[in-house]
Amino acid sequence: MENIIIEPIIRNALNEDLGLGDITTIATVSYNALGCAVLYTRENLILAGVDVFKAVFYEIDSNLVISGDYKDGDRIPQDSLVLTIEGKLRAILQAERTALNFLQRMSGIASKTKEYVTKVKLWNTKILDTRKTAPGLRVFDKYSVRIGGGYNHRIGLFDGVLIKDNHIAAAGGISKAIKKAKSYIPHTLKIEIEVETISQLTEALDAGADIIMLDNMNIETMGKAVKMVANRVPLEASGGINLDNVAEIAATGVDFISVGDLTHSVKAANFSLKIRNSKNN
Amino acid sequence: MENIIIEPIIRNALNEDLGLGDITTIATVSYNALGCAVLYTRENLILAGVDVFKAVFYEIDSNLVISGDYKDGDRIPQDSLVLTIEGKLRAILQAERTALNFLQRMSGIASKTKEYVTKVKLWNTKILDTRKTAPGLRVFDKYSVRIGGGYNHRIGLFDGVLIKDNHIAAAGGISKAIKKAKSYIPHTLKIEIEVETISQLTEALDAGADIIMLDNMNIETMGKAVKMVANRVPLEASGGINLDNVAEIAATGVDFISVGDLTHSVKAANFSLKIRNSKNN
Amino acid sequence: MENIIIEPIIRNALNEDLGLGDITTIATVSYNALGCAVLYTRENLILAGVDVFKAVFYEIDSNLVISGDYKDGDRIPQDSLVLTIEGKLRAILQAERTALNFLQRMSGIASKTKEYVTKVKLWNTKILDTRKTAPGLRVFDKYSVRIGGGYNHRIGLFDGVLIKDNHIAAAGGISKAIKKAKSYIPHTLKIEIEVETISQLTEALDAGADIIMLDNMNIETMGKAVKMVANRVPLEASGGINLDNVAEIAATGVDFISVGDLTHSVKAANFSLKIRNSKNN
Amino acid sequence: MENIIIEPIIRNALNEDLGLGDITTIATVSYNALGCAVLYTRENLILAGVDVFKAVFYEIDSNLVISGDYKDGDRIPQDSLVLTIEGKLRAILQAERTALNFLQRMSGIASKTKEYVTKVKLWNTKILDTRKTAPGLRVFDKYSVRIGGGYNHRIGLFDGVLIKDNHIAAAGGISKAIKKAKSYIPHTLKIEIEVETISQLTEALDAGADIIMLDNMNIETMGKAVKMVANRVPLEASGGINLDNVAEIAATGVDFISVGDLTHSVKAANFSLKIRNSKNN
Amino acid sequence: MENIIIEPIIRNALNEDLGLGDITTIATVSYNALGCAVLYTRENLILAGVDVFKAVFYEIDSNLVISGDYKDGDRIPQDSLVLTIEGKLRAILQAERTALNFLQRMSGIASKTKEYVTKVKLWNTKILDTRKTAPGLRVFDKYSVRIGGGYNHRIGLFDGVLIKDNHIAAAGGISKAIKKAKSYIPHTLKIEIEVETISQLTEALDAGADIIMLDNMNIETMGKAVKMVANRVPLEASGGINLDNVAEIAATGVDFISVGDLTHSVKAANFSLKIRNSKNN
Amino acid sequence: MENIIIEPIIRNALNEDLGLGDITTIATVSYNALGCAVLYTRENLILAGVDVFKAVFYEIDSNLVISGDYKDGDRIPQDSLVLTIEGKLRAILQAERTALNFLQRMSGIASKTKEYVTKVKLWNTKILDTRKTAPGLRVFDKYSVRIGGGYNHRIGLFDGVLIKDNHIAAAGGISKAIKKAKSYIPHTLKIEIEVETISQLTEALDAGADIIMLDNMNIETMGKAVKMVANRVPLEASGGINLDNVAEIAATGVDFISVGDLTHSVKAANFSLKIRNSKNN
Repeated sequence: MENIIIEPIIRNALNEDLGLGDITTIATVSYNALGCAVLYTRENLILAGVDVFKAVFYEIDSNLVISGDYKDGDRIPQDSLVLTIEGKLRAILQAERTALNFLQRMSGIASKTKEYVTKVKLWNTKILDTRKTAPGLRVFDKYSVRIGGGYNHRIGLFDGVLIKDNHIAAAGGISKAIKKAKSYIPHTLKIEIEVETISQLTEALDAGADIIMLDNMNIETMGKAVKMVANRVPLEASGGINLDNVAEIAATGVDFISVGDLTHSVKAANFSLKIRNSKNN
Repeated sequence: MENIIIEPIIRNALNEDLGLGDITTIATVSYNALGCAVLYTRENLILAGVDVFKAVFYEIDSNLVISGDYKDGDRIPQDSLVLTIEGKLRAILQAERTALNFLQRMSGIASKTKEYVTKVKLWNTKILDTRKTAPGLRVFDKYSVRIGGGYNHRIGLFDGVLIKDNHIAAAGGISKAIKKAKSYIPHTLKIEIEVETISQLTEALDAGADIIMLDNMNIETMGKAVKMVANRVPLEASGGINLDNVAEIAATGVDFISVGDLTHSVKAANFSLKIRNSKNN
Repeated sequence: MENIIIEPIIRNALNEDLGLGDITTIATVSYNALGCAVLYTRENLILAGVDVFKAVFYEIDSNLVISGDYKDGDRIPQDSLVLTIEGKLRAILQAERTALNFLQRMSGIASKTKEYVTKVKLWNTKILDTRKTAPGLRVFDKYSVRIGGGYNHRIGLFDGVLIKDNHIAAAGGISKAIKKAKSYIPHTLKIEIEVETISQLTEALDAGADIIMLDNMNIETMGKAVKMVANRVPLEASGGINLDNVAEIAATGVDFISVGDLTHSVKAANFSLKIRNSKNN
Repeated sequence: MENIIIEPIIRNALNEDLGLGDITTIATVSYNALGCAVLYTRENLILAGVDVFKAVFYEIDSNLVISGDYKDGDRIPQDSLVLTIEGKLRAILQAERTALNFLQRMSGIASKTKEYVTKVKLWNTKILDTRKTAPGLRVFDKYSVRIGGGYNHRIGLFDGVLIKDNHIAAAGGISKAIKKAKSYIPHTLKIEIEVETISQLTEALDAGADIIMLDNMNIETMGKAVKMVANRVPLEASGGINLDNVAEIAATGVDFISVGDLTHSVKAANFSLKIRNSKNN
Repeated sequence: MENIIIEPIIRNALNEDLGLGDITTIATVSYNALGCAVLYTRENLILAGVDVFKAVFYEIDSNLVISGDYKDGDRIPQDSLVLTIEGKLRAILQAERTALNFLQRMSGIASKTKEYVTKVKLWNTKILDTRKTAPGLRVFDKYSVRIGGGYNHRIGLFDGVLIKDNHIAAAGGISKAIKKAKSYIPHTLKIEIEVETISQLTEALDAGADIIMLDNMNIETMGKAVKMVANRVPLEASGGINLDNVAEIAATGVDFISVGDLTHSVKAANFSLKIRNSKNN
Repeated sequence: MENIIIEPIIRNALNEDLGLGDITTIATVSYNALGCAVLYTRENLILAGVDVFKAVFYEIDSNLVISGDYKDGDRIPQDSLVLTIEGKLRAILQAERTALNFLQRMSGIASKTKEYVTKVKLWNTKILDTRKTAPGLRVFDKYSVRIGGGYNHRIGLFDGVLIKDNHIAAAGGISKAIKKAKSYIPHTLKIEIEVETISQLTEALDAGADIIMLDNMNIETMGKAVKMVANRVPLEASGGINLDNVAEIAATGVDFISVGDLTHSVKAANFSLKIRNSKNN
């Protein structure tokens, strides 16, 4: 992720927490006190967001020294030392919570994504994210999915076409909707359309859809759909996916499975940051 | 929540999703097409964020008409009709996902908070949130905790004093830390200090702490602490709280229990928004 | 174009011109003076930006009344009355220049686009824009191209894939570059690649490119390319296109022609806004 | 131009192009790949904006090394090497288009301004710009005019007084308008007023105008005006100026000629930026 | 003052005070409670900022009803009722302090300015402000000076030329500095230069300065300067002006006297806002 | 004060003054000219804001070298050399006025606060500030009060509870208001309530107020209040405090005295910044 993109989000998060200042720290820690913080995992996890974590500390104090070899995507066992932070204690204490809030969410997403990816690895199916992300954090949420081995669906409404039931109805049917989309959207974008039945699937194929989303279909119908399409276009399963049913769905032969659960219901990854004061100058 | 506070966050979230425009909708739905959306619960939940949800739609089109009687804090059974939205279909489609992302997170937080609150209702213990919130969404996360029957701890580092182990070490001990805080912070703020042992507790009491946080104490020690303090100051239990152990902790007689889980690991509440196109003009 | 997208750009433009106030107008025009402005075309043109033009006036004073039936895309002959604006004279004078700056640029782009589109209408070729737009105005520039009958290429680096020579070299060749892109980008995006020779074209086709850009090819080679590809993928001609050679290029049978000139070298469309003072209160 | 002024505009332009990231480059170019870019002129031009061009690259990556001796205002022959850029290939590719969009517009404006200036050099007439600039880019447009040998008129409505026909009518005549302006505006500003006839000119002179703009006068009347005024105040010709008539107008003896064409109809200067990949680490 | 200019400053001030919410009011005042506030003067003063005051309340709640006939510039005796505000009590309480902070500063500036103006009214001398304003509030400070009968000097470094001793030294003397300024600045601006001695004054006159500032001159020298210049250019006295010496300085015949004290040392005008709760719904 | 907090305010102030550039300096001072500025006190004062002062210069040019040993809180005699600034003359001239505007206001506040503090030093009473600050500058105003030996009251409406007469009336009495506040606000905040009579004071004490503000009480009643409360809760005197009566009020034995005058009526501290040009390169 480029600095120019993430910096305003980090700055905003710090302002939210710091407001007009960390009064506890200013009151109790002298300006020149030094400290050292050590970050440990408290569960087995996939690391994601370590550069964001660092950037939060550097935003507060660019003279902090952060050392550690793990990088995003690494699987780290429980109770491992991830990195150390050395420098002014005030800066460490002020950045700590905000940095962890990013890291824990991001690693939580990556770790859960990896679970899904692992479940479907026999079938070559790709796990996709959705737009069900925390408002304001989409770029981090989607990055974390990639780190966990998943793939990104469109970022927002602006960079991908997904024709849903309401668009179809408004346009006057599947064929008309696809035709309208073709005449409007940039030629660099594919047209994905959502279908719920086999007959809609047929119509979408005939109308030249580039990708077809099978929305809330049962396993049996999905299987039929896969056979019928026979690799002419990629198929994406969507709706009600969880860790229990994802393998079964992958076994139908769909190309993609999109999972809202990856980002709408995040379990924070368990880290602990311990700080040791060094000395006051 | 005041408009002046939430509006920039809503605007930012919409920009994140809309970018330079919802190309699918512009391509397939005519400018004057009308629609009606109905919002249903898909599980039993505590509603939170309904005004934010509405504000997202109004931000896109202030002429939409949203009707419904439920308000934040209401417990709503599964499959209930929460509200309806009528107006330009384009506007409904553009606001839909962002509005749901807020509502599902907020109602998820409120519903989980209510579970915690219910577990401790025999003991008059208050459930508190923490600063472990999604970056940029703290005001929504903390509001949702209140709606679920919980109470807010400080909003950020600026509006409350919480002296932790590192502050204590940097200040040269518990007494010195409390003294330094008293001489610096506004007189309108109480001083809360974190202790891990009974002897630290004694020192904190003697030094005039206003609130004492029992950090990661076991049940037995916590019980001792409660007896020893004998209501002279409020006690807050913190660390490793979950739905399984919260009642046991409340039974020790502590006044507050702070729970990171309320906001760092949110399960999105399950809603469905169905849209019906009406007519094109 | 959605209000939420264009409003900040309009506000910024007004601030740029107004700064701390229109001192001439404040000095010479009384607060309650009324006026009426009439907007005329001073050349035959394609109208683009009339809603932006109005939005500038409304941003200054939402009580202004603007009347007129022309809409974006209309061809308007020279010396036609486009619209009238009635209300506070101060507001009209303060918004005037900024509103015209948008309208003249946008109609200039639409009118020039229409010239290109007209030149190629025999061949069904689509005229595309590029990213060679005025910094900060891309959404307006690209909108104006659509109004003129052109089509948009990707909006920015984020919503489309265009593999150029440097990407190819960095990736280790055309096949590798396409493979890398396929494994990274959202499945909703097509992969376009730039080629300069027939042998590169062959390699790109084999590697599964979705769209191929013929970069700075001469007419003869382009003709060969079209035959060779035989509609398997769309072809886009690019580089050195102008009104003199665009028809000849279209005649080769390429599907798209992208034209930097549409937006990097804009001739302002000629409008005149005459204001008549009405009365002072 | 000061950094504090241009940095937000550059940042905005980069965000517009980069959005959530340059997906092609991220997919195909490794993080550590190095590159070297060379910037050539493809026509004879006046360089303007080279510092802005560099600032765009530095904004993305402050470690890029840019070398070259040309500076703003230099006339550079076609096919000259202007500068080289060395460093991370990703950074070069991400900044390239935005940097060129600034440079080409700015050098285009400077080059055209120089053409006007050259046409009038016999008469000591100064060429002025107007407020007909691209919204959001006025500071760059006006800077480029200066680089081309032109002079700036007021920056916006806030820093100069120009009383036009509507102000005159609203104020109740030329004398009243000038009197009102004198009593309101800071004493550091001159009062310029627009006249269309010789009798208005006389009235403006008598009323104590500091500068008089001859609006859309024909050559003959303009000549009369110059004689009549006899250097008592500076005269500015305005309206319908182009490269064909500017010399004839200068020959009347006016002091200034303001030219909307300098900035409202810009032809992008022709540069080419070639990038050579170096090596991947 | 235009809304587009003052609105961001008002919004910023409200955010500064409200932060994440007025917790006292939310806790104690019900959402629908109504109230009525009455604003009284507590000293004889010149009213300035009444529209800003209102705008603060409207920003919080556009449904508040504010009634009162006084307008900026009115002299209001002590203990007069200025206006009343009716509507939601919460809104009134939340806007109150911020609105008063603007009004008291602005009326304080206007009232003090009027004192200076009154002292010099025999001599037709104009009282000017300076750039010694509260950071971020210049537009309000300078507006208030005008309301008090003073005149504005340049707004900032961008809209007026004032050549000081350091500029003179850097440019190589008074004549060179004026010449350089003439060749650079827009022709709509006058050139003001600061002199400290009669010989500098002579040089500035000869070099064609438009305005001359007499910096920290004693009364006697100032008198000589006025005679010598004999109305050829306006003279501005500056440095160490206060209410005790301003009349004496005006009596020398200078045209302008600039007074930093007007805005750098503001005494808040004394108002009281009493609120009466009406009824709860 | 943390950089992340003050930087946007400094940047805003510089933009306000610089606008699109310091035209006088650009015209008369060459790009590479060097200079040295010396800052002197022109009265005996308490220094406050020296880091802000420096930050303004560094924001314009991070290569300036500023030397001087005084720090905030130091009492500095009249005509002392505070610091020197060396580097590019243009940068020094551009930052000068803005930097002084901060420094003079902040040192003015600190110096006046010290006067109040000195008046009450016999009684151990703490001098508090209020929310009567310059809009947008609260963080600087309150910081300066601390530097002068005063203490901060709440920063805004968000971080402290102060129940005033209107809140009491709306809540249905003192007891109800306190009860409502206790059940809403974070447990880390104390509850302060305003009373005007002894009987209200009794009610507030009984209801469990943490702090009681004696609003506009006369000295005699205040004395009674102090005796009655007998240190059970801290008492704050408020309303109509000035340098003449503050000692008498302190003598009553109240714990705090809050003084609007500290920040609503600031007299700029008297500094002079002299610049010496060094040499042109």
